[in-house]
Amino acid sequence: MNKTYNTEIISVGTELLLGHVTNTDARDISELLSQIGINVLYHTVVGDNPERVKQCVEIARERADIIITTGGLGPTCDDLTKQLLAEAFGLKLVADQAEMEGLKDYITQGRIFTENNYTQAMLPEGCTVFHNLWGTAPGCAFEKDGKIVLMMPGPPNECVPMFRTYGLPYLQKRSGAHIVSHTVDIFGLGESTVDDMFAQEMNRMTNPSMAPYAKECDCLLKITAKAATVAEAEAMIAPVLEEVTQKLGDVVYGVDADCIEESLIRLLEQNPHTFAAAESCTGGYIAKRFTDLPGASRFFKGGMTTYTNEAKARLLDIDPALIEEKGAVSYEVAKAMAEASRAILGADIGIGVTGLAGPEGDGVHEVGTVFVSMAVEGQTYVRELHMGTYRTRSFIRRMAGNHAFDMIRRYLTGLPVKAGVSNNSGVV
Amino acid sequence: MNKTYNTEIISVGTELLLGHVTNTDARDISELLSQIGINVLYHTVVGDNPERVKQCVEIARERADIIITTGGLGPTCDDLTKQLLAEAFGLKLVADQAEMEGLKDYITQGRIFTENNYTQAMLPEGCTVFHNLWGTAPGCAFEKDGKIVLMMPGPPNECVPMFRTYGLPYLQKRSGAHIVSHTVDIFGLGESTVDDMFAQEMNRMTNPSMAPYAKECDCLLKITAKAATVAEAEAMIAPVLEEVTQKLGDVVYGVDADCIEESLIRLLEQNPHTFAAAESCTGGYIAKRFTDLPGASRFFKGGMTTYTNEAKARLLDIDPALIEEKGAVSYEVAKAMAEASRAILGADIGIGVTGLAGPEGDGVHEVGTVFVSMAVEGQTYVRELHMGTYRTRSFIRRMAGNHAFDMIRRYLTGLPVKAGVSNNSGVV
Repeated sequence: MNKTYNTEIISVGTELLLGHVTNTDARDISELLSQIGINVLYHTVVGDNPERVKQCVEIARERADIIITTGGLGPTCDDLTKQLLAEAFGLKLVADQAEMEGLKDYITQGRIFTENNYTQAMLPEGCTVFHNLWGTAPGCAFEKDGKIVLMMPGPPNECVPMFRTYGLPYLQKRSGAHIVSHTVDIFGLGESTVDDMFAQEMNRMTNPSMAPYAKECDCLLKITAKAATVAEAEAMIAPVLEEVTQKLGDVVYGVDADCIEESLIRLLEQNPHTFAAAESCTGGYIAKRFTDLPGASRFFKGGMTTYTNEAKARLLDIDPALIEEKGAVSYEVAKAMAEASRAILGADIGIGVTGLAGPEGDGVHEVGTVFVSMAVEGQTYVRELHMGTYRTRSFIRRMAGNHAFDMIRRYLTGLPVKAGVSNNSGVV
Repeated sequence: MNKTYNTEIISVGTELLLGHVTNTDARDISELLSQIGINVLYHTVVGDNPERVKQCVEIARERADIIITTGGLGPTCDDLTKQLLAEAFGLKLVADQAEMEGLKDYITQGRIFTENNYTQAMLPEGCTVFHNLWGTAPGCAFEKDGKIVLMMPGPPNECVPMFRTYGLPYLQKRSGAHIVSHTVDIFGLGESTVDDMFAQEMNRMTNPSMAPYAKECDCLLKITAKAATVAEAEAMIAPVLEEVTQKLGDVVYGVDADCIEESLIRLLEQNPHTFAAAESCTGGYIAKRFTDLPGASRFFKGGMTTYTNEAKARLLDIDPALIEEKGAVSYEVAKAMAEASRAILGADIGIGVTGLAGPEGDGVHEVGTVFVSMAVEGQTYVRELHMGTYRTRSFIRRMAGNHAFDMIRRYLTGLPVKAGVSNNSGVV
């Protein structure tokens, strides 16, 4: 394998420090670099201040082999990056003729062409010019004193395509490595439990490596390998993936799935079933999440948001006496909702959800109490969840949806559906 | 005014350097600090590597008065921030009894409690503990050697509310300035049009200042004033707010509203009406958005997600012949959906939405074609939107919802509802 190239990304822009703009450039460049095996060790954000930018460049020279800047290439007076970087590496800025002509063409097409527009075409002597097809300010790259410097414009819709088009190939030549990652997606175990289960392996492993990540209502294990080819990296990951998936068992809902509903739609494509949902406390969120996915209409027959008791009676024909007797938030009503949604829409599977998402309670149950039910041919399952009163409305609603999707997943794959009571919003 | 406090935010987490996660914590903390007149000069991101984190802390000590860390407080083995910061400032970590008990309670509610969970309750001696109501890992703050250090957990849904609750008041005491902002929330005009309307004023103004911001499907003008007291800042903003709101007219849906549905629920509280929604391409998203708001059940009678033609017939009694003749995506079907949802649920207002959110088309309409309808006593309005084929599924679904909420808002406030055809997803 070649030399390891450590990288620092310096983003220049006061708007980032005021919180007006999120530094998505650094994230996107980092993600692209990780795919070619180049390590990013630092992101730095600094304002449009020459003294401070200069100091940041000095620090980066000490600790990185590759310095990538974003921002500060435009014509306004606070755009200083090129000047400072050239200075730091003892290079002069010279006018690039092609860029000068190009700029002139572009800007005279309606815009006023002022003196400071020309500064965009002033570039470090001997650099490789990255012509900007997405805006006006060109980027560039040079090598000096054993360091590689790339400068990209700040606006994400210029920076990212430019980096992909020019920056990545420029750096790929230097990296012999490819990095491949896969995620094992888990619902029903917390991140710290997963961490505990694999702590020994994770400490021991270097390549491939493995790390757990928490998401809002589920978690994942990420396995990453670095090798000279993608195929080699894949071959290194395969046995670990196999072992981890086996050890975790039926809490694994997918591999490389963004969310549980995405894994569910893949499953439905292989094993077509239709479903319908009657939602009270989730208020349409389950329908919304599933219909976020292109192609959802093949499997999702429709839903009823029966947020009020009246709607439960009108849309689902649920006997008001049952609601009166058992309460709107109850095992019995959840069950009736699942069965009604299935029957009314003629679906294979019906979902019913009723609960208290808060912040106000109903005087009977604690906030975070949710009943999630799934009706299929000949059987209805109900999960009774107690997520904890400290949970946010958003968490409770999302978690309830995860349970609904998890029940369908388990039913479709022939796993035990796991109905019953759960006190930690995990699976019983 | 008091001393200027320069701040550096250090975010610890390899996932940030791999581009898996965006550093929204640094953005959100920066935005909050700007409201109390504290400057942020640097953001640094560094991985879970003790040596490198230590070096970053040393650099921050040299150039900042306040160091705020995010991330690395959890129980997993790569969480090192507290240890390293305590070390850097010569402090010991000691067990916080209250946190220890709290953690035990929390974790034993169903989850397995492991040794590494305890490390979360180990905190620098003498620090102010920030109890985490949104997760488990506590944050903390201390002052040492003329520096102020705050440590916050990494997950944004813990970091941001914790910083707002504890961090901001902790730092506010040190800042003599108060910064107050108000937003004027706009639907129906693009950010660049708004920018154009107020360009002259904005260039002239310094305190208060004014700037436009684009959101996914609407935009806002933010007016900000800095003064010695909140009352003084408010008095500086009031006349500008008045003038801007007048000039913009009925595209202003609120002041300091997070989103159009939040402004709608405030309006409904003053002028109670009930509504119901029949959703096709939005698939429950309108119901989901409105029921995100606590108290929604007073006004939202319920909804039907009639994603398929079959569901439109079964749940809404829409004549299949009408769908056959006019198409599921049509003026007539949207109108029938709005009227049916209103009638079936006995609501004052009925909403109907049908359209093409993509990515696939239907061979008749372009992706981005949506009909949004509102039925009230004696009248039904329909907006026909052509958002453009380049729009994402997520944009199209969100924008359709904004139109539905906008129609209700206009109806409730006695403004013209503005039905008709729009070619730019704005209002006709």
